[in-house]
Amino acid sequence: MPVQPLSSSNSTSPEALTVMGAGLVGSLLSLFLARRGHTVDVYERRADMRQSGSVEGRSINLALSDRGWRALEEVGIGEQIRQVAIPMYRRVMHDVHGNLSYQPYGQDNQAIYSVSRAGLNRTLLSLAEANPQIRLHFNQQCVGLDVRNRQLDLRDATTGEEQHLTFRRLFGTDGAFSAVRSALQKTERYNYSQSYLEYGYKELNIEPGPGGEWLLEKNALHIWPRGQYMMIALPNLDGSFNCTLFFPYEGPHSFATLQTPAQVEQFFQAVFPDVVPLMPELADEFFRNPTGSLVTIRCFPWAFDDDVLLLGDASHAIVPFYGQGMNAGFEDCRVLDQLMEQLGTDWHAIFSQFQQQRKPDTDAIADLAVYNFQEMRDRVGDPRFLLQKKIESKIAAQYPGKWTPLYSQVTFSHTPYAQAWQSGQQQESIMQRLMAHIHTEADYDRPEVQALVHQEMAQRR
Amino acid sequence: MPVQPLSSSNSTSPEALTVMGAGLVGSLLSLFLARRGHTVDVYERRADMRQSGSVEGRSINLALSDRGWRALEEVGIGEQIRQVAIPMYRRVMHDVHGNLSYQPYGQDNQAIYSVSRAGLNRTLLSLAEANPQIRLHFNQQCVGLDVRNRQLDLRDATTGEEQHLTFRRLFGTDGAFSAVRSALQKTERYNYSQSYLEYGYKELNIEPGPGGEWLLEKNALHIWPRGQYMMIALPNLDGSFNCTLFFPYEGPHSFATLQTPAQVEQFFQAVFPDVVPLMPELADEFFRNPTGSLVTIRCFPWAFDDDVLLLGDASHAIVPFYGQGMNAGFEDCRVLDQLMEQLGTDWHAIFSQFQQQRKPDTDAIADLAVYNFQEMRDRVGDPRFLLQKKIESKIAAQYPGKWTPLYSQVTFSHTPYAQAWQSGQQQESIMQRLMAHIHTEADYDRPEVQALVHQEMAQRR
Repeated sequence: MPVQPLSSSNSTSPEALTVMGAGLVGSLLSLFLARRGHTVDVYERRADMRQSGSVEGRSINLALSDRGWRALEEVGIGEQIRQVAIPMYRRVMHDVHGNLSYQPYGQDNQAIYSVSRAGLNRTLLSLAEANPQIRLHFNQQCVGLDVRNRQLDLRDATTGEEQHLTFRRLFGTDGAFSAVRSALQKTERYNYSQSYLEYGYKELNIEPGPGGEWLLEKNALHIWPRGQYMMIALPNLDGSFNCTLFFPYEGPHSFATLQTPAQVEQFFQAVFPDVVPLMPELADEFFRNPTGSLVTIRCFPWAFDDDVLLLGDASHAIVPFYGQGMNAGFEDCRVLDQLMEQLGTDWHAIFSQFQQQRKPDTDAIADLAVYNFQEMRDRVGDPRFLLQKKIESKIAAQYPGKWTPLYSQVTFSHTPYAQAWQSGQQQESIMQRLMAHIHTEADYDRPEVQALVHQEMAQRR
Repeated sequence: MPVQPLSSSNSTSPEALTVMGAGLVGSLLSLFLARRGHTVDVYERRADMRQSGSVEGRSINLALSDRGWRALEEVGIGEQIRQVAIPMYRRVMHDVHGNLSYQPYGQDNQAIYSVSRAGLNRTLLSLAEANPQIRLHFNQQCVGLDVRNRQLDLRDATTGEEQHLTFRRLFGTDGAFSAVRSALQKTERYNYSQSYLEYGYKELNIEPGPGGEWLLEKNALHIWPRGQYMMIALPNLDGSFNCTLFFPYEGPHSFATLQTPAQVEQFFQAVFPDVVPLMPELADEFFRNPTGSLVTIRCFPWAFDDDVLLLGDASHAIVPFYGQGMNAGFEDCRVLDQLMEQLGTDWHAIFSQFQQQRKPDTDAIADLAVYNFQEMRDRVGDPRFLLQKKIESKIAAQYPGKWTPLYSQVTFSHTPYAQAWQSGQQQESIMQRLMAHIHTEADYDRPEVQALVHQEMAQRR
């Protein structure tokens, strides 16, 4: 299913473009660029993941939501990915006794989708490879980049040979530890920050049942909220779940205090008792799998003249708690594509408008992602919070078009993130005022509460 | 006047310590460390500024205030520096017609002091050199630092020779672009940010009068506030003033639009007419002197185990608008000295408590410095703002000990910066409420205004 070039009047000056990084964002971006008539050379540091098997050792899944879907649909692979994606309609919270509670993500059939990172990346690579305008080059590490002279030095990881390229326009989609960004950081007055949480993560596995069935509710994202830490699980097609423990590096309950298999077993038995029987390899995995760190990266500018542009994690790596890292990177591609549609090959205007428009939104989702960590590890375990979410759903239903919960704006809409965040904060203030008068779900229908709701809604905008 | 070792019971285990950077903070730090009985090797990238003349091409002055004085007095050179420092008792604002207005900095004799950066640094170096426990090594550039193995590689700028040292404990006082910090930045999960203002600065000179007299009021800091930009001037001992223009890089009035001598002359004639006759070399200097940038640097941690510690600009470079960069660095030395007094040579505790205690305060002064830029370039030109400052002085006089203006807390007290900032924000809210009822200085004595003031003050703490 090769992508057909668009017949836009603006795409009359095809150019030879360079993309560094063939991860999710880089491979999708190459498809968007080719669709505008350009030829694209894509360089990737790692081997071709379609040949080398799963590079991470095992599949890791991501939550794909509306912003990501929209970009995939634009390049024509929405349907194909949907067939290997598992909808998750709600959060299922597991307490320390194994009791469950529930919180729907949205209305009716709204869901976020568990997809395999490697599977999605392989599909995008195959689609890119099938496109005659795109050439993929693997095992090509960026070892030098001179943005002023547009020189890119690449080392072939298999032969050790170096090549020196002159590029005309370079897109840096090489992730949170981007080599392209490193070169920009050496330009004058570059704004940059990297900020780590004092939490790491550990990936663990829940096995499928004997018949390949899911041993927890399949169509849900599972959360074990424990205040200062939490575990989550997302379903895979083979009946397994990928679990991730988000846990402090230091402190009374932390990676520092879990040093032996017995300590790990005891700790899980005490705080996650319902999963222990589902994790026969728990202690092995705990010590075999690396502890990942959680970083937020911000920088500006993203563009160097009309020569270099950063997209995705290279310009805005965020923590995973809103499930928006990939979605934001895919939305980058779509926003850039819109600007190409409007501005043709006026790359100076495209790059400049892209970073001006996109920077406040990616700053907002970075803040939202940190904020959601608190919600997931702490607040979703609180009955008052779940009651507030139910009441909020009632307001959204009663005032259609006038109230969209923050989570839905981020996940099920294309409202710019910054606007969603602002509106979400206003709504949270209203909820705080209303909840002072609400103690049960039924309270919502009391005349005095309804009067307050009407009054608050009348004052909105 | 060599510094005598303290006879503290805690300083019984003298150590051999290493300091990288012999600027203001590094040379002062070496004196504090030697006073505790340690021997100190100080390495400095540049040549000995006492021999090479003024390295910057001409003297640049800094505003020394109470935090800085206290540290200088502790090492016994307060009096010596006071003789070459010029007190500035007030701000003198120059409007576009050359009309002046005034704002005292504090009560009575409170002043900030204009001192020569190079002169102060030379004095500190001579004091360090006279101390038998301190050895100074110039022209020693840090070209490699392995914090895990405590290896420091230095290149001699005059001979090109490299030496490889093993240090036991390294203090990084090598400024905003610190090589020591660069090594820390490569450790795991390092938090770092560099943030530039969209303003640069240009240094200019006001000549002394024919008899060596000051052509503007000597004992004042002069400001030409112009909304989006400003110029300031500080007095020198020789009758000259150092001026600094803080100016946008881009925009209608910016470095980008002043490209020819005629443009510079015209612009200054239009907006700073009263200084043009005092700057015979204006256009020459404007194009000869470099345009400096304005960066805020934050990082954490400052310590690597008990092996390495950053102080001064290396850990918290700030913009110059509160005149607190050097003062904060000197206060670092004093706070570290207090911890050495309490904790002896328990360096792990000293380094850990130092960074925990000091980080919130240096974050606060970084924010305050950006905030004060707005005040200086914009608000000090506003009669309402000057009225508010006068009213605030009246409140401070009427309620001694219960109200200290923010500027005074930062400049004339040793209150931790974070606490000063918080209290200053509370006071600003009160001022906003009071000023709604005040239109002239005399209004302050109206019974209804006095009642409001009493009410506000009764509610404070």
